[in-house]
Amino acid sequence: MIRRFDFGHPLHTGATVLALESEKDISTLPRLHVTRDGESVTFTCPLQADTRLYGLGETVRGINKRGHHYRSWNTDDFIHTEEKESLYSSHNFLIVASEADCFGFFLDDPGEVIWHLGDQKMNEMTVTSVCGDLSLYLIEEETPAAICRELRRLTAKSYLPPYWAFGYIQSRWGYAGDADMREVLEGHRTRDIPLDGICLDIDYMDRFRDFTWDSEKIPDLKALTHRLREENIHLIPIIDAGIPVAEDDPTSVDGVKEDVFVKTADGSLFQAAVWPGLSYFTDFLSPKGRAWFGDRYREMLSCGVDGFWNDMNEPALFYSREGMQKAYAVFDELRGKNLDLDGNWALSRAANSLANSMDDYTAFYHDVDGRQVRHDRVHNLYGFGMMRASREGMDRFAPGQRFLLFARSSYIGAHRYGGVWQGDNRSWWSHLKLNMQMLASLNMCGFLFNGADIGGFGSDTTPDLLLRWLELGIFTPLMRNHSSLHTRDQEIFRFECWEDMRAILTLRYALIPYLYSEFMKAAHDDGLLFRPLAFDYPHDPIALQTEDQLMLGGECMIAPVVEPNSQGRYVYLPEDMLLLRMRSSEDMEEEKLEKGVHFVPCRLNEALLFVRRGHAVPFVASTKGVRSTVDLRGRELTLHGWDAKAPYTLYTDDGISMQEGTCSLLGGEA
Amino acid sequence: MIRRFDFGHPLHTGATVLALESEKDISTLPRLHVTRDGESVTFTCPLQADTRLYGLGETVRGINKRGHHYRSWNTDDFIHTEEKESLYSSHNFLIVASEADCFGFFLDDPGEVIWHLGDQKMNEMTVTSVCGDLSLYLIEEETPAAICRELRRLTAKSYLPPYWAFGYIQSRWGYAGDADMREVLEGHRTRDIPLDGICLDIDYMDRFRDFTWDSEKIPDLKALTHRLREENIHLIPIIDAGIPVAEDDPTSVDGVKEDVFVKTADGSLFQAAVWPGLSYFTDFLSPKGRAWFGDRYREMLSCGVDGFWNDMNEPALFYSREGMQKAYAVFDELRGKNLDLDGNWALSRAANSLANSMDDYTAFYHDVDGRQVRHDRVHNLYGFGMMRASREGMDRFAPGQRFLLFARSSYIGAHRYGGVWQGDNRSWWSHLKLNMQMLASLNMCGFLFNGADIGGFGSDTTPDLLLRWLELGIFTPLMRNHSSLHTRDQEIFRFECWEDMRAILTLRYALIPYLYSEFMKAAHDDGLLFRPLAFDYPHDPIALQTEDQLMLGGECMIAPVVEPNSQGRYVYLPEDMLLLRMRSSEDMEEEKLEKGVHFVPCRLNEALLFVRRGHAVPFVASTKGVRSTVDLRGRELTLHGWDAKAPYTLYTDDGISMQEGTCSLLGGEA
Repeated sequence: MIRRFDFGHPLHTGATVLALESEKDISTLPRLHVTRDGESVTFTCPLQADTRLYGLGETVRGINKRGHHYRSWNTDDFIHTEEKESLYSSHNFLIVASEADCFGFFLDDPGEVIWHLGDQKMNEMTVTSVCGDLSLYLIEEETPAAICRELRRLTAKSYLPPYWAFGYIQSRWGYAGDADMREVLEGHRTRDIPLDGICLDIDYMDRFRDFTWDSEKIPDLKALTHRLREENIHLIPIIDAGIPVAEDDPTSVDGVKEDVFVKTADGSLFQAAVWPGLSYFTDFLSPKGRAWFGDRYREMLSCGVDGFWNDMNEPALFYSREGMQKAYAVFDELRGKNLDLDGNWALSRAANSLANSMDDYTAFYHDVDGRQVRHDRVHNLYGFGMMRASREGMDRFAPGQRFLLFARSSYIGAHRYGGVWQGDNRSWWSHLKLNMQMLASLNMCGFLFNGADIGGFGSDTTPDLLLRWLELGIFTPLMRNHSSLHTRDQEIFRFECWEDMRAILTLRYALIPYLYSEFMKAAHDDGLLFRPLAFDYPHDPIALQTEDQLMLGGECMIAPVVEPNSQGRYVYLPEDMLLLRMRSSEDMEEEKLEKGVHFVPCRLNEALLFVRRGHAVPFVASTKGVRSTVDLRGRELTLHGWDAKAPYTLYTDDGISMQEGTCSLLGGEA
Repeated sequence: MIRRFDFGHPLHTGATVLALESEKDISTLPRLHVTRDGESVTFTCPLQADTRLYGLGETVRGINKRGHHYRSWNTDDFIHTEEKESLYSSHNFLIVASEADCFGFFLDDPGEVIWHLGDQKMNEMTVTSVCGDLSLYLIEEETPAAICRELRRLTAKSYLPPYWAFGYIQSRWGYAGDADMREVLEGHRTRDIPLDGICLDIDYMDRFRDFTWDSEKIPDLKALTHRLREENIHLIPIIDAGIPVAEDDPTSVDGVKEDVFVKTADGSLFQAAVWPGLSYFTDFLSPKGRAWFGDRYREMLSCGVDGFWNDMNEPALFYSREGMQKAYAVFDELRGKNLDLDGNWALSRAANSLANSMDDYTAFYHDVDGRQVRHDRVHNLYGFGMMRASREGMDRFAPGQRFLLFARSSYIGAHRYGGVWQGDNRSWWSHLKLNMQMLASLNMCGFLFNGADIGGFGSDTTPDLLLRWLELGIFTPLMRNHSSLHTRDQEIFRFECWEDMRAILTLRYALIPYLYSEFMKAAHDDGLLFRPLAFDYPHDPIALQTEDQLMLGGECMIAPVVEPNSQGRYVYLPEDMLLLRMRSSEDMEEEKLEKGVHFVPCRLNEALLFVRRGHAVPFVASTKGVRSTVDLRGRELTLHGWDAKAPYTLYTDDGISMQEGTCSLLGGEA
C-alpha cells in the first residue's frame, strides 16, 4: 500500500505516474517523526539492532546502507571511495527492514537530501530535505521485494532495451572515428571475440560539440554505421549535457533562438564551462527544452545510430566566469606571500572548488510548470530530464522501436526512459565488488538495465582484474568494457590471456537467452533481476548479512571472486544448489553442494554460477560461430539443473519492438 | 644465506650493519635477470602460477603484493586508495615464494624504485632502480620467515619500546595544550577508561615551529608532564622535519649558524613551505646534521617528555618559491580565457602539482660521506635519517633508557631506531583491513612496533567502525586512537557505546603481558610478531590465500571483523583452535573449533582470538582498577588454552632499560 504525504509546495517532478492524493493530516504519517527547522524537514526513525536499510540506488558501500551518511546531490566525482556522500544519481528510495517491521519510502524531492543512516547515533536514522518541498510516498508491504514492486507501480514499468544491447560492448575515452572503429572491430573479429556494440566517447565530436562529428575522423557517419551493422555491430555515440557558447555552432545558435537554455536571475543565459569551454544548458525541466533537445538526435538516428549514452548530466560544471573570478581574486591576494597552513589551504581550495560549485548551482533557474525555480531546488532532476528528452526524441523518430539508451545521472522514475551505467569507476578490486552491490540497489529503484565499466574506467587495469570483472560482467544486463584516456588499453585483445577472456565471453552469449528472459519477466512483472540474499531468505542469519553474493532471476545465485590473488572464495548457500564452475560455454563442471558454508575453489579463468535445487538454467547448447547476438537466433538450448526434471519457462520476443513476447516451457518431468 | 651484488656506485645508506663484500661477478646473480637502460638497472624474474610476493612494508593492498605496481618514493599522500603507488615509507624488501622456490632480496637503493609485480604481464616481475646505484642483497633460505630473520641479521635487531608504550594512547590533530590534556585525561579517568599516553599534534607549537611550545596553551611544560605522570600518563609531542625560515626562531638561527641545512646547487639554503611557511631542512644524511637535530630534543626531554612522533619527514614539501612562480605563470597565462578540456586540466594541474614536486626534490643536495648528492638520489633516506637523529639524541640524553619513538617516513634499517605508524589513513572499513595486512608486511621488514590510527585519521568515523577497529587495535603494539582536524571527535568517551569500547580496552590491558612477551621474543630472536597464515602453513591451499587473518606470536591467530553491518565472519582454521569470544577481560566464552572453514558469529561488542591447540595464552586474571600499564604490575595471570595442560613461557623485564629480561614457564603438565 502506498500513502502520499506532501510537505511544503512539492513540484511536479514527473517521477511518479500513479494519481494519488496527499493525505490531509500529516500527523497520521506512521513510523517517521517529523521535525522542521526553517525550510528543512527532517524525518527521524529509530533503528532496531537487526534493522537493515536497503535502496538508495547508485551509491557507494554495501547493499545494507546502514552505518554511513549519504547526500542526494548528483555529482560528477570520479573517485568513488567508500566515504563519498554522492555519486551521479539520486535515488531517494529506502527500505527499512527488521524482523518486527518492514516499510519503504520514496522522497520525491529533487533538491538536496541528507541521509544519516545510523552513522551518528547507531540506533537512529534521520533524513533531511533541505528545501522542504516534497512528496513522501510511504510504502507498507510485507517484504522488501513487495515494496520494490509497489515503487514500480508508482513510477511505471522499467525501460526495455533491444535484444542486441545484451551483447558485449567495447568502449574507450579516446575512440574518435573510423580508424578506431576498424581497429576495435578487427581486434575482436579476427580473434572470434563476440561483440555487439562500440561506443564513441567525446573525441568523435567536432571540438566536443554535441550533435556534431569530426568530419576528418568520420567522413560519412551513415557509411560507418552501415559498415559496422554488416558485422552486426551497433555504434553508440555519447551526448553531453552542455551546448557550447559558439556562434558558429548551429545547435547553439538554434537553442538561443528557440530560447531553450537556462537563465540567471537577470534573464541572461547562464554559462559554465564543460569540455568545449563555456556552454549553455538546456532547460530539461520544461517540455519545450526537452522537445528541442530530443529532436537534436534525429540526424544521427537517420544515419543509422540506434544507441546513445548521455553524459555530464548532473550537470557537471567545470567553472563559471564568476567562480573563476573569485578563484583569481584569491590567487592575486596570495601572490608572492609566504604561505603557512592557512594560506596553503586557501590556495588549494580556490583552485579545487571551481567545479560543481553551489554558487553556480544557485545562479540559474528552470521553468517548472510556468514557475521559475532556482536550480539547486531541482538539481537532481537534470539528468532525469535529459534522459526523458532523448528517449522521447527517439520515440518520435521511430515510435514503437526499442533503442539503447543509458545515462550517467538519473532520478527515481528515469528507469522508464533508459538504463544507467554506474559512473566513472576505477580499476579497483573494491569497485568490482561495488559493481555487484550496486546492481542490487539499482534494481530496487527500477533500474534493471545497468552495469559498471568492466575493467574499470579510471587508472590502469590488470589482466587478472579484467578477467575477474568479466566473470561478473557476463551476468549484468549492460556489459560494457570502458576505460579512460591516459589509462592502459583495455580491450580484451590487448592482453596475453585474451583467450581466457574470450572463453568467459562465450558464457555471456550462452546465457543471453536466459538473462533476457529473466530481465523481461522482471520488467513486465515489476520484479527484481538481482536481489540480496536477504530478500529471498529473510530468516537466515547468514543470508541476512551476505554482501558479496546476489540472487539472479528465479533460478540462481552469483558469487563472483572479487579479491586479487584468490583461487577461490567463501560462498554461503542458503539452500542446496548446483554449482556450475565454468571456463567457457563448452567447458563446465557441475557439482552438487549442500546448504551451508563452503570454500569454493575458483581459478582465475573460471566463473561460478549456483542453480537452486528444483530449478534449471538454459544455456545456448553451442556458441560455436557466435560473433554477436544475431548469431544466437534459433540456437538450441540446454538446461542445467540439479536434476533433469527441473523445467524453465523461457520468455522470448522480437527483441526490437514493444510487442509483447511469449513464454514457453523448457524441460520438466519427462 | 645473504649475498651482496653492487651496481653502479652505491652510497653508504646505513641500512645494513653486517660487513659483507659485494660479489665481483654480477653475472653470478641467480634468478634475477639484469638489464640496463642508461643509468637505470632492471631486475626481471618470471612468476610461476603459484608464486606469492611478500614484503614492501608500508604499502597499500593485500599481504600478497602480486598483481599491482608500486613505487618506492616516500610520499605524503593522505588518500590511501588501493591504486596508490607510494605511501610515506619505502621498504625495498621482497620475498618470492612458490612451492618450487623461495628467496628474498633487499635493494639498498635510496632513490626511486619501480616495482611491476605481475600487473603488466601476469607471469613476470620487473624491479627497476631508476638511479642504478645500489647494493642488492639476495637472501636464500628455505622459508619466508627464515628470509625475514636473515634480513634482520643484515640490518640489526628491532627497536625496543618501553613497556608503557603498549598502553592505550589518545591523539588528535588539534590537541594544543593544558586544557585539551585535562579534557582527555578527565574524559578517560572519570569513566575508568585506561590510558597510558596522550599525543600533542602541531598545534601545541608556537606557530608550528619545532622545539617550541605555545606558552599560552602550555605555560609550563615540565609541570604538565609531571601532572600527567602522576596519573601514569605520558605526553608524546610531535616533531616535524622542517625548520621555519625565521630570524626570530632560535632553532632556525642556530641551524643556519651551524650550517646543518640542505642547500641548492649554488650553495644557498634550500627553502620550501610546510606548516610554518617557508622552511629549511636539516641534512639528516650528514652526521653533523643528525647530531644537531638530535640535540634539539634535549630541552623537552629535560621537561620529562619521554615519547615523540616524527612527522612530515618524507620530506613533505607544500611548495617552493620557484614552483609557485611556475604555477602563477600558468594562472596568468589562463586568466580570462575560455578554457576547454585542455585549459581546465592545465589550471588544475598547476595548482595541484605544487606539493611534493620532483622539481623541488631535484633542487637540493645532501652531504653523504663528503660527496654532494642530489636529493632525489637519496630521497627515501630522509625519514630514516631523522629517526636516527632523534633516537641518537635520546640515547645521548639518557643512555640505556628506552623512549617511545615512532615516525611516519622510514626506510629499511630504521626499525632499529623506532617504530612507525601506518600514516594518515582514513575512517574507512577498507583501512581497518589494510591496518591488519600492513601489520604483517611491516613485521617482515623489521618494524615490529607499529600500528595504524585507530578509528581512522581522515574523514568522520562511526561508532561501529571505531568499535571494530579497537577490536583489532587491542592486538597491535602501537595502539593509538588518532584523528584529523575538522573530523568528528573520536575519543572513546564521546560515543554512546563508550562502555562497550572500554570493555574491549580491558582486553588490551589483560593481554599486554602476553603481547609484550611475544614482542620481545620476536625482537630478540629476529622473529615476526605477526605473520600471514601462509608462513606457518605453506602447504595448506586455503591458508596460502588467506588475507584477512594473521598468526600472532607463537600461540594464536587473529581474525577481526573488518566489514560493516556484520555479525560474524568466515574464519579459516588451519588447525584445531580454541576460539575466545571476548566482550571484556571478565566476560569471555570459549569454544573448541576444528580445522576447516567456519562462519563465526561475532557481535559488534565482541573481539575474537583463536588459540592453537597445545598452546595457551596468558591473560591478566583481573583488570579491575587497571587505569594504565603501571597498574598491571604484579597482577596474576590466567592461561587460556584448548586444555589445561598447555604451558606458556613468559618473557618479562623492567620495561624501561636495555637490560635483558627473564623467561618463566607458566602452567604446563600438572
